[in-house]
Amino acid sequence: MEFAAGVDFGGSSAKVGLVDRAGGILAKETVPINASEEFERIVVPVESRIQALAERHAAKGRLIAVGIGTPGFIEEGSGTIVGGCENIPALQGRSIQEHMGKAIGVPAFADNDANCAAAGELAFGAGRRFSNFAFVPLGTGVGGGLVLNRRLFRGARGFAAEIGHMCLDPNGLQCNCGSRGCLEQYASGPAIVRLYQEKRRKRELAAPALSPKQIADRAREGDRLACETFGETGRWIAQALGTLLNLLNLEACILGGGISEAGDIILEPVRSQLPDFIWPIVGAGVSIIAAQLLNEAGILGAAAQAMERLEG
Amino acid sequence: MEFAAGVDFGGSSAKVGLVDRAGGILAKETVPINASEEFERIVVPVESRIQALAERHAAKGRLIAVGIGTPGFIEEGSGTIVGGCENIPALQGRSIQEHMGKAIGVPAFADNDANCAAAGELAFGAGRRFSNFAFVPLGTGVGGGLVLNRRLFRGARGFAAEIGHMCLDPNGLQCNCGSRGCLEQYASGPAIVRLYQEKRRKRELAAPALSPKQIADRAREGDRLACETFGETGRWIAQALGTLLNLLNLEACILGGGISEAGDIILEPVRSQLPDFIWPIVGAGVSIIAAQLLNEAGILGAAAQAMERLEG
Repeated sequence: MEFAAGVDFGGSSAKVGLVDRAGGILAKETVPINASEEFERIVVPVESRIQALAERHAAKGRLIAVGIGTPGFIEEGSGTIVGGCENIPALQGRSIQEHMGKAIGVPAFADNDANCAAAGELAFGAGRRFSNFAFVPLGTGVGGGLVLNRRLFRGARGFAAEIGHMCLDPNGLQCNCGSRGCLEQYASGPAIVRLYQEKRRKRELAAPALSPKQIADRAREGDRLACETFGETGRWIAQALGTLLNLLNLEACILGGGISEAGDIILEPVRSQLPDFIWPIVGAGVSIIAAQLLNEAGILGAAAQAMERLEG
Repeated sequence: MEFAAGVDFGGSSAKVGLVDRAGGILAKETVPINASEEFERIVVPVESRIQALAERHAAKGRLIAVGIGTPGFIEEGSGTIVGGCENIPALQGRSIQEHMGKAIGVPAFADNDANCAAAGELAFGAGRRFSNFAFVPLGTGVGGGLVLNRRLFRGARGFAAEIGHMCLDPNGLQCNCGSRGCLEQYASGPAIVRLYQEKRRKRELAAPALSPKQIADRAREGDRLACETFGETGRWIAQALGTLLNLLNLEACILGGGISEAGDIILEPVRSQLPDFIWPIVGAGVSIIAAQLLNEAGILGAAAQAMERLEG
């Protein structure tokens, strides 16, 4: 048997796992990270853990590649993180892929976490039955991954699929990216929390900062303002997906991230409002569904994109 | 030598030409069309003309394929025009590609005119030096073509690249497609004519319906309202291209159609306002340029997409 290691870098830990070609996880561990440390102090312990896991499971099979998911813009080819990784400053401007490849002695491939998650859905999750889909992780931020002709599409330099930064309203809310009216400003977790609070305050109701999950629970129980919150959020998402579908004639859009766990509470408003934004012929038969890989999406996705790239 | 026939169907005529692999046009003719006639009456005379041209030039080389450009949504594989070809009703629901392939005895490939034009720019024009670009024809309507990894990207069923129907403002102008705020409503020729007229009327100035070319000439001469018209039009185009670049990490955007002949009068406002809508890293080094193939773009593009497809 052959397996790839999947590494999911976050601000406080790296999750590491060994993944076989069917998406089975043979072993996994969490390596704590001090995000303020220097590059080698962060990367070397992760490498050691991967090697230890591979040795422990050597009887079952052979490690053929390492896949690494991190935040940020990762340059195709070199694997250098060229921006957007402010949470772990020491990684910026460096290539974890190059370091890990040398240290472990197998090909290593880095990609941003949203691309990894899209590769995971393609290989093992909700994307298996589609050749062309968009993956839209809705969490603290809004990312994106594009699968075209059953391959992850990365663009000229590896920076493609910034779905969260589609401009939906040129006079809209100011975004962290410097532009206005980006999808991220309307469909992230914080945006949902803020919208529900605003609606409550306008009606002089108590407005505690509930989590998106709590707001979804309220919507499920019939809370009208919670339903409206997901209705309006769903409309922005529908506008973004409509443009994506008109542009790319996809078979499916897969919503991921924490917000997607709300299921039909978020999916139905998107589905019902999507026709307002697309050519009917382009929308016919398109699936708007939730991601399938949840807790282990990071490890599975990182390993999946490495296996995909290994095959060229 | 090998050559392909390129056919460019319009509402009143079909332009037909023989094109070699370097983009040279060996011969061309115009076949009048009565758009209200039935399918065979429209298609058979075009087929006869292609055969006559190929025979006349048989000493120079061999006809290897026929490429056909028409308006509308053309289904990948079958070549059936499944919608959007209201100008020539008899073509709807039929496959010119199948008919011509049988009649002429070489592989025939139909695609919509914007995709053909994009293929033409890729093979013979402004797209030659890029692997990933968007082609945006700005004319009576606004279409689109996407070249990804040096191939035309057609999506799941062949309907991709409806760049004119990206929603730029959910509360914007009503569009013919049924949605609101589509790029086409702000960047087409009629939109430019209307905007300039509105600006003149608001100032109680004479507001004749000048052509986009005349308005561009006025802008070149320093007419402030004409400059503002192209400035605002350029801003909408910049918003659309910003989203395209954030999504697809392209190397270039090529503006085509009649409006692109205004050159820097339209290109400069797009270039200068683009940074408002993109991640700087995604915008770095991107070329915003005009198409190179002008009058013969239809024939060259139709032939180019046929040669591309012939190669698989």
